Amino acid sequence: MTVSDGERLARAALCAVAEPGEALLGRLIDRLGPQGALAVVRGTEPVPDGVPVTERVRTRLAAWRARLDDADPEADLEICARLDGRMICPGDPEWPTTLDDLGDRRPYALWLRGRADLRHRCLHAVAIVGTRAASPYGVRVAADLGAELAERGWTVISGGALGVDGAAHRGALAADGWTIAVLAGGVDRFYPSRHEALFREIIEQGLLVGECPPGTDPGRLRFLIRNRLIAALARGTVVVEAAARSGALNTAAHARRLGRPLMAVPGPVDSPTSVGCHKLLREVPPARCVTGSAEVLEEVGAIGADLAPVPQGPVLPFDALDPTTRAVLEALPARGSAGPARIAVRAGVDLPTATGRLGQLAAAGFVERTRTGWRLSRSAGPRLSSRRPP
Amino acid sequence: MTVSDGERLARAALCAVAEPGEALLGRLIDRLGPQGALAVVRGTEPVPDGVPVTERVRTRLAAWRARLDDADPEADLEICARLDGRMICPGDPEWPTTLDDLGDRRPYALWLRGRADLRHRCLHAVAIVGTRAASPYGVRVAADLGAELAERGWTVISGGALGVDGAAHRGALAADGWTIAVLAGGVDRFYPSRHEALFREIIEQGLLVGECPPGTDPGRLRFLIRNRLIAALARGTVVVEAAARSGALNTAAHARRLGRPLMAVPGPVDSPTSVGCHKLLREVPPARCVTGSAEVLEEVGAIGADLAPVPQGPVLPFDALDPTTRAVLEALPARGSAGPARIAVRAGVDLPTATGRLGQLAAAGFVERTRTGWRLSRSAGPRLSSRRPP
Repeated sequence: MTVSDGERLARAALCAVAEPGEALLGRLIDRLGPQGALAVVRGTEPVPDGVPVTERVRTRLAAWRARLDDADPEADLEICARLDGRMICPGDPEWPTTLDDLGDRRPYALWLRGRADLRHRCLHAVAIVGTRAASPYGVRVAADLGAELAERGWTVISGGALGVDGAAHRGALAADGWTIAVLAGGVDRFYPSRHEALFREIIEQGLLVGECPPGTDPGRLRFLIRNRLIAALARGTVVVEAAARSGALNTAAHARRLGRPLMAVPGPVDSPTSVGCHKLLREVPPARCVTGSAEVLEEVGAIGADLAPVPQGPVLPFDALDPTTRAVLEALPARGSAGPARIAVRAGVDLPTATGRLGQLAAAGFVERTRTGWRLSRSAGPRLSSRRPP
Repeated sequence: MTVSDGERLARAALCAVAEPGEALLGRLIDRLGPQGALAVVRGTEPVPDGVPVTERVRTRLAAWRARLDDADPEADLEICARLDGRMICPGDPEWPTTLDDLGDRRPYALWLRGRADLRHRCLHAVAIVGTRAASPYGVRVAADLGAELAERGWTVISGGALGVDGAAHRGALAADGWTIAVLAGGVDRFYPSRHEALFREIIEQGLLVGECPPGTDPGRLRFLIRNRLIAALARGTVVVEAAARSGALNTAAHARRLGRPLMAVPGPVDSPTSVGCHKLLREVPPARCVTGSAEVLEEVGAIGADLAPVPQGPVLPFDALDPTTRAVLEALPARGSAGPARIAVRAGVDLPTATGRLGQLAAAGFVERTRTGWRLSRSAGPRLSSRRPP
């Protein structure tokens, strides 16, 4: 399945005219595809049967149409490419299938900057979220959790905010692990600006992800809509610290709605920034109380089982690989990483073939990009090595 | 139902020869009554049908019989009386019927010192327990919980130990409320000795309760057996702080086994004295996470409902009282307390009649003893006043 240029451009246009996560637009895309949905927005195609044309629908369509004139999806894609970024769509190998759980509110497309493969990273990803006004305790716990999870090969997803989010990202980076920041605006908008250096580091060692085209400023509503992506991309969500009405509780609600494990870190009962966590622990059914990374991994179903294939996502068995791809895979060193040229030589294939197959292997979860090349992914590695001749 | 002197003496003897909570002895008492059970211990009666005489049963009986020579139940009762204490038995008005939930492991008798009526106080009682090695956080939370619950008319039950227990008792005392310390030894043994002043204050404003006759030293096993009493006497148990292998977790297990609400106070995940609480919050089903007294009261079923009759224990409706008892009840002041003489005069009865009826009213939950006399109990008060002529 490949995404046509027309489809890609239509999705970029839809990102530019509609706010993220509009269910009406999601439904139109489902029915008519992105180009058909864009035609409805333009008014060159009628609203399809089964979507009742209420006053509200008319208002939405009119609002989107009004923005069409100012939209320049080609320029957006070009700006993104100039930032070394990319836009991915449903149908792209890097598109995380877990986003389907969002139904009508699935993103129209995602704008990415960074070295990681989004779909592959999300196969083993935990969201760590919490209040911007974190206490020293919350910062410490978030950083420790981020580092420990990253050390065990898990990707840490968060919202890039001050406080808990930033500490979780930093913990993962400190452990030389992967981390993904899901932004409420364009991936060229470093918000908060105090985190600019952090975001630049995340681009090197993970991903910035956004639903809005470059140039879009984050806004209060966009933060709330963004939260569903954090919950949907991760296997489970941990709330480290949250005041009684923290945005992190919104992310928690999304995780619950999506049927993902929801976890909360307890804290002192007299700490205002733990009130939200205790609220989650008192809900019926309660969030799971977690006090460390082992308990988090227990919850997302992987304690001591990193060798087991992850049931989510179409990870291919080793035997299903074609001979060339298998040769490329076997050319990777058992430990550490190697550049594509060296891998190509060892596999006996040319460089474009090697890089192409490496991309496929990454999408299937066998290998992952590092700063210096490619390595066996921590989850697949031991399983593969046992299959090799001694 | 009254308890005969012979029965009472037999129970005192059984307390002297057997460790608390021996199921075999409990079964013998159930079958044959205390005097019959004592005769079996003496060997003057056979073991009844239905109790298989295994080697273990023979060993237990022999051990108890060996201790009979040294037992002096009359002296024990006298020592207790000299301490201004009392021994109560099943059948006594002050015996808490909730202890029946212990089945075979119901206490043979209880030894009490203090001004409170045990059964009545336990109608609204919460156990607050935790580690002896409490952190400043645990001490603060236990004292606050103790004070707030006591302020709202609830009795605070604990084990009299250093740390969390002591803080809970002190909180209740500071709020001028009721508190009960359940001891692992005799009620004349102030253990730990550092709590002697605390125990003396509890005698004035609550109760010391023990299963062992005066003179019995506490011991490790007696502490564990004692814990079932704490759980059984209270409507619910709150663990404030507990290390991974704290005795408080044993009390928690008893509360669970008895079907009483089990609550745990969360704390910092890096605090060793909260590890046990977090363990309880992670059990399946989890203990209820509580962060303050309102949440505790919600759990034991009384939030904003202190006016409602407590479903546990045979609390009589007002209309079921005979005219004399009702006159005594109506002679109590609407606010504050009055001495029995004044109550007798207002009710138009003699002093012995007044004190007798006050005892019955206390057992039924209508009135309670204070340092200076009797008052309407906080739970019954508003209900009663609304029934009185204006």
